[in-house]
Amino acid sequence: MAATYGYVAHKDTYAKRLRKIEGQVRGIAKMIDEDKYCIDILTQVSAVTRALQSVALGLLEEHLGHCVAQAMAEDSDGDHAAAKVREAADAIARLVRS
Amino acid sequence: MAATYGYVAHKDTYAKRLRKIEGQVRGIAKMIDEDKYCIDILTQVSAVTRALQSVALGLLEEHLGHCVAQAMAEDSDGDHAAAKVREAADAIARLVRS
Amino acid sequence: MAATYGYVAHKDTYAKRLRKIEGQVRGIAKMIDEDKYCIDILTQVSAVTRALQSVALGLLEEHLGHCVAQAMAEDSDGDHAAAKVREAADAIARLVRS
Amino acid sequence: MAATYGYVAHKDTYAKRLRKIEGQVRGIAKMIDEDKYCIDILTQVSAVTRALQSVALGLLEEHLGHCVAQAMAEDSDGDHAAAKVREAADAIARLVRS
Repeated sequence: MAATYGYVAHKDTYAKRLRKIEGQVRGIAKMIDEDKYCIDILTQVSAVTRALQSVALGLLEEHLGHCVAQAMAEDSDGDHAAAKVREAADAIARLVRS
Repeated sequence: MAATYGYVAHKDTYAKRLRKIEGQVRGIAKMIDEDKYCIDILTQVSAVTRALQSVALGLLEEHLGHCVAQAMAEDSDGDHAAAKVREAADAIARLVRS
Repeated sequence: MAATYGYVAHKDTYAKRLRKIEGQVRGIAKMIDEDKYCIDILTQVSAVTRALQSVALGLLEEHLGHCVAQAMAEDSDGDHAAAKVREAADAIARLVRS
Repeated sequence: MAATYGYVAHKDTYAKRLRKIEGQVRGIAKMIDEDKYCIDILTQVSAVTRALQSVALGLLEEHLGHCVAQAMAEDSDGDHAAAKVREAADAIARLVRS
């Protein structure tokens, strides 16, 4: 059986949000092409960054509630669960520092 | 005369970087569509966020060196320059907090 | 029995790291009092911010591995575990956005 | 004559804000010593991080309005001003990435 991840139930929502973000990135390219004011472009970049972080936080919550939870449930000695927690913590550190 | 902003000299570079970012966002959507592992998707989201921030930091440096510098040079009483510095500081705050 | 949290085993380490951060904050105040160069002060502020985030990431990893894991283990219907995951996700969101 | 930086006019305000931040860091250490709940400690860490960033953004705005502006005004060939803008942009990048 293929693994099913936490986000699978919301694939359509994520697809839609990422299409919107893709359109926003294209919009920033268009602003630069049309010589728009730098500060207005920066405002758009901040908006896209926040939208991406929001996608990441959603994926992460579902990852903790499904994949990490499953590792904890199936794990007899705790080693596998500890590795999953460490992996999630590393991903969180990358998000916090990016 | 139309205003020319600091980034204009590098429009092609920014266009190229944003096309790459657009492709990366499409890549994240594809990873979700193909049920890739959550942590690998999060790693990609962090990479795109960093790429976007790098674009923002480049635009900002050129904005400070051109638009803000020009406001300071043309400004007799300092009010316009102060407004430009405040506007840039607000944009920096949005970047730091996003 | 009082609850014991994940970080309890490392209380001394955290106490030491926070005393160091406290000293760094005092150092920034001293730099301002002594009219040090703005950019050097900003470099110190970035260093303290990173040190604080590192403490937060450590606490968070231990929280996931202990408190959230315990909620998952003890939870028959999953409601309590889901609430713990949501609470952790909210804390992560605050870290990412701060 | 000694250089006077942009923040000098508000030294007392910064001293006060940093003393408050120092107290908040001590408060976090106390929460850990008293076995407070991890999530509540994380909320405090996020609050201190935001307070530090706010100090940094204030220092930066004053740096742009004074030190960078002065470099631009005094600079005949633009080299010194460009170096100051680059230095400020590097400091902004450290803040955004921390």
